Amino acid sequence: MDDPITLRLSELHDRRTFLTRASALTLAIPGVGAALTACSPGRPNSSDTTRAAPAQGTGAAAPAPGTAQPNNSDSRLDTAVVKGEHHAGTSATGTAAQGAQSAVYHRFDPMLPPLVPGGRLQLHWHAREVPIRIADDTVVAAWTFEGDVPGPIVHTRVGDTVEFTLTNDAAIPHSMDFHAAQIDPKVAFRSIVKGESVTFRFTPKFAGAFMYHCGTAPVLMHIGSGMFGAIIVSPREPLPPAKEFVLVQNEFYLADAANGVRASSYQKMLDMLPDLVAFNGRPSQYVKEPIRVKRGDRVRFWIVDAGPTHPCHFHVVGEQFDTVYLGAPPATPIRGVQTFTVPAGGGMCFELLCDVAGEFPFVNHGFGHGQKGAIGFLVVEP
Amino acid sequence: MDDPITLRLSELHDRRTFLTRASALTLAIPGVGAALTACSPGRPNSSDTTRAAPAQGTGAAAPAPGTAQPNNSDSRLDTAVVKGEHHAGTSATGTAAQGAQSAVYHRFDPMLPPLVPGGRLQLHWHAREVPIRIADDTVVAAWTFEGDVPGPIVHTRVGDTVEFTLTNDAAIPHSMDFHAAQIDPKVAFRSIVKGESVTFRFTPKFAGAFMYHCGTAPVLMHIGSGMFGAIIVSPREPLPPAKEFVLVQNEFYLADAANGVRASSYQKMLDMLPDLVAFNGRPSQYVKEPIRVKRGDRVRFWIVDAGPTHPCHFHVVGEQFDTVYLGAPPATPIRGVQTFTVPAGGGMCFELLCDVAGEFPFVNHGFGHGQKGAIGFLVVEP
Amino acid sequence: MDDPITLRLSELHDRRTFLTRASALTLAIPGVGAALTACSPGRPNSSDTTRAAPAQGTGAAAPAPGTAQPNNSDSRLDTAVVKGEHHAGTSATGTAAQGAQSAVYHRFDPMLPPLVPGGRLQLHWHAREVPIRIADDTVVAAWTFEGDVPGPIVHTRVGDTVEFTLTNDAAIPHSMDFHAAQIDPKVAFRSIVKGESVTFRFTPKFAGAFMYHCGTAPVLMHIGSGMFGAIIVSPREPLPPAKEFVLVQNEFYLADAANGVRASSYQKMLDMLPDLVAFNGRPSQYVKEPIRVKRGDRVRFWIVDAGPTHPCHFHVVGEQFDTVYLGAPPATPIRGVQTFTVPAGGGMCFELLCDVAGEFPFVNHGFGHGQKGAIGFLVVEP
Repeated sequence: MDDPITLRLSELHDRRTFLTRASALTLAIPGVGAALTACSPGRPNSSDTTRAAPAQGTGAAAPAPGTAQPNNSDSRLDTAVVKGEHHAGTSATGTAAQGAQSAVYHRFDPMLPPLVPGGRLQLHWHAREVPIRIADDTVVAAWTFEGDVPGPIVHTRVGDTVEFTLTNDAAIPHSMDFHAAQIDPKVAFRSIVKGESVTFRFTPKFAGAFMYHCGTAPVLMHIGSGMFGAIIVSPREPLPPAKEFVLVQNEFYLADAANGVRASSYQKMLDMLPDLVAFNGRPSQYVKEPIRVKRGDRVRFWIVDAGPTHPCHFHVVGEQFDTVYLGAPPATPIRGVQTFTVPAGGGMCFELLCDVAGEFPFVNHGFGHGQKGAIGFLVVEP
Repeated sequence: MDDPITLRLSELHDRRTFLTRASALTLAIPGVGAALTACSPGRPNSSDTTRAAPAQGTGAAAPAPGTAQPNNSDSRLDTAVVKGEHHAGTSATGTAAQGAQSAVYHRFDPMLPPLVPGGRLQLHWHAREVPIRIADDTVVAAWTFEGDVPGPIVHTRVGDTVEFTLTNDAAIPHSMDFHAAQIDPKVAFRSIVKGESVTFRFTPKFAGAFMYHCGTAPVLMHIGSGMFGAIIVSPREPLPPAKEFVLVQNEFYLADAANGVRASSYQKMLDMLPDLVAFNGRPSQYVKEPIRVKRGDRVRFWIVDAGPTHPCHFHVVGEQFDTVYLGAPPATPIRGVQTFTVPAGGGMCFELLCDVAGEFPFVNHGFGHGQKGAIGFLVVEP
Repeated sequence: MDDPITLRLSELHDRRTFLTRASALTLAIPGVGAALTACSPGRPNSSDTTRAAPAQGTGAAAPAPGTAQPNNSDSRLDTAVVKGEHHAGTSATGTAAQGAQSAVYHRFDPMLPPLVPGGRLQLHWHAREVPIRIADDTVVAAWTFEGDVPGPIVHTRVGDTVEFTLTNDAAIPHSMDFHAAQIDPKVAFRSIVKGESVTFRFTPKFAGAFMYHCGTAPVLMHIGSGMFGAIIVSPREPLPPAKEFVLVQNEFYLADAANGVRASSYQKMLDMLPDLVAFNGRPSQYVKEPIRVKRGDRVRFWIVDAGPTHPCHFHVVGEQFDTVYLGAPPATPIRGVQTFTVPAGGGMCFELLCDVAGEFPFVNHGFGHGQKGAIGFLVVEP
């Protein structure tokens, strides 16, 4: 460990020790598959309560939350984070830190994908550890859904059915928590180890921009390392025609580069001072390659704030939102808004009518965050 | 003072010096009993403007805010905080740090207590310094109302009368500020020294979840050391039947343990990076001992965010709120919400229909906070 | 550079280096006049794309955002911030740090100025670097509109016309971004160098409390150094009669004093831990000199949170807001609110009926901020 970090750790020793104890209380959340499993090769998988979990719909056999051991001392990541042994509490696990050279930058398409006809969306995703190039000179060791940060944009509709399967290809346990679902998380959102799969289905009740994320403990670490995305639920009665875009804000907390890759740092996440903030996983990507619409278009931004910690004060420079939906669209709209706060772990729907041509930056107007990359351009062509 | 802290202080010297000057402006707030009194034994009580304050209802004789000295150099705590003399600016005052062994952990009951019949609620509380066990291995030197953190849950109704008396049993001045009251704070919320009492009454105008707290300067220190709680005001026309729970989020900023007790640190509060975050005063207590309801129940969470500084992005994993009231229930509900932000110093009412059995974590989805203990379980039994 | 800062920098080296790279992406925002110009005397103005920018209304000749160089290596401030050469990334530019002795403290009048008759408001402002005394013992090196922090309160009405000219008297480029305008920011909000002027007009569509600020990159630095204020847009149908006040919250991030003046520190802004927080630019100014109304008055607070980073949890001790407008007044009011969050870069309208005489502190109830100066007094005279 290099000097700067040593300094920091010694200085923060008091707090860290305490946090360690605190973490011991919360790292493992029984019922969300939280008893992290020791799945490293050559080490016996001694405490996988998730494997023993009952099948979907029958939660009775699982240990009651009140009786479960709050900390799983056999958990590899738990142990790593608490004791600082494994990668010093970073995301540099499995294949996450390999292949920086081959990690090619690409713009994340912010367009809302079309609805799938038939009212049934079938998804089979894989949890994977991959290096992601988030800027020309920055590759992060990411934990992902489907190999990207954020994961794929899901688009469905109130009353439709989403059938979802997650297969874990990664070295540590992962899971899936859709905020659009009303479902027993102990079963549906349970953690699975490498090679396992979990399947569940749900029918969204409410329209809106919802977050999804890995809910495996410590959740802060799994969101903070890249396992999040947006599921957009349209109302059954279509909203007014618009160009629809999805922006997911997240914070990056990064350790020093090793072999050209920067792992996510759990200690930095606990310190809550991000290095970078981004819409759709790449700081300032839409400054370099803007979102383009035509004059006269209505634009609908579905904003999800993945955090892990900070809200997003969403604003479009030179424009005003004629409508922001605080709840499920089209209910309870508010009109004439310059900036509104999207909660960490929440989502909102922002609309504006582009009757002026020009180049409009959209930002997190909490500028300590905006300046770190939560900024882009909406270009309204004449 | 040990080395890590020395390092931190020297490093932050520039900011600290300035904060000290800044604090001098705001520590003492005239009109809220803010001229802190020197009440240590053997030291003359030389500047107790609160004692000279007029009786309730006649504020005329008190010094106008504009003319009062903004900083009271005779204030013991002021002096302590500014000069770092007294317990290094911590809550280790009076009896707060004594008796760690005898501090027994107990779960804080989150149930909303029933309304008292007759429309008149009479409360006589005591401000007390006590050690509180917030976890198996953690005892904090708390400043309290009625010996617990948070203080007792108060339940009243729009139009009813609350008659409140505070007696100060503690070494330093304290006071009471109810957010549900419309009343002259210069009189009703004035600070009192050890042995004194203050009485006031009020009639809540609006329904909602309201914070109460000690308003004695520095307010940050008094809230941060444990003097806060919730007063729930039900509307006169009852809301739909529900299982009703009260959750008060707060942050802990803790110094090193001394004799097994950790005092609250004012400097850490100014630095705004909490060590722990909790619902109802104990990190993760409802992970260990969940809140239990039955399938089919409507659950109403009255959420108060005591801070002292950070908001709460309230979320229930696997569920959605069919209703969140931003203002006084039952007005202006919003529907279909995954997460909404409760302001620091604010309160909101969240409802969900538990039509799915399971184990549902509720969290501050600002996960830098959630991971530090702002998490619990709602178990919906089949 | 003194030792404490050296320590901090070395300790944060890892993050800083990364931020530097991140900043390189976002410091210069093409289309908002973001290519900062090198305007120091004796240095050739080698890259002034703003000068080459097309006249208002014809944006076609400017480089498209996607093709512009994201960082302008010729920019003096850019270079300064990135390399730490110029004033160590502070606001101690031009005349900002001169004349501490002559900087006289004055209370910032919070009253909403009357509407100008005729429906046309003409403003010609100057961007100026001046030292501002924000407290008896504190002078800051400010970047300003019209020589004060915040800039002048603007009051207009939905459908009226604002004709605005900014002339830059300052050493570095500046610009103006009104959140009340729907206009092409690439043209209207473009940066201008010393001696230049920019003129634009707009017609506010929505009522509300809107922020204005310098939008020149890095925006965080320009807001953080003092270039912000409030434009209040009244609805055409007047709101109920009230005493109307405007409060703009901002954070100060200050370097050590040099010659009695403290510059704003860009690194501290990135670290997001403010030294002071204020309403209308002076910490606790309305504690010393309160806002006064009469019993029976309705009070309307137009709150703008300039940030640059943190929201404002606005609260009046001893009172409750009967009305808070989340969107454009008078639409979508919520009733019975103790505290509501104003987003960084946003504005809201809070109303209360002062039917109780007394002295009511108004605060940011995020008390880590309130304690640093976001506090004042509303005195309701009998």
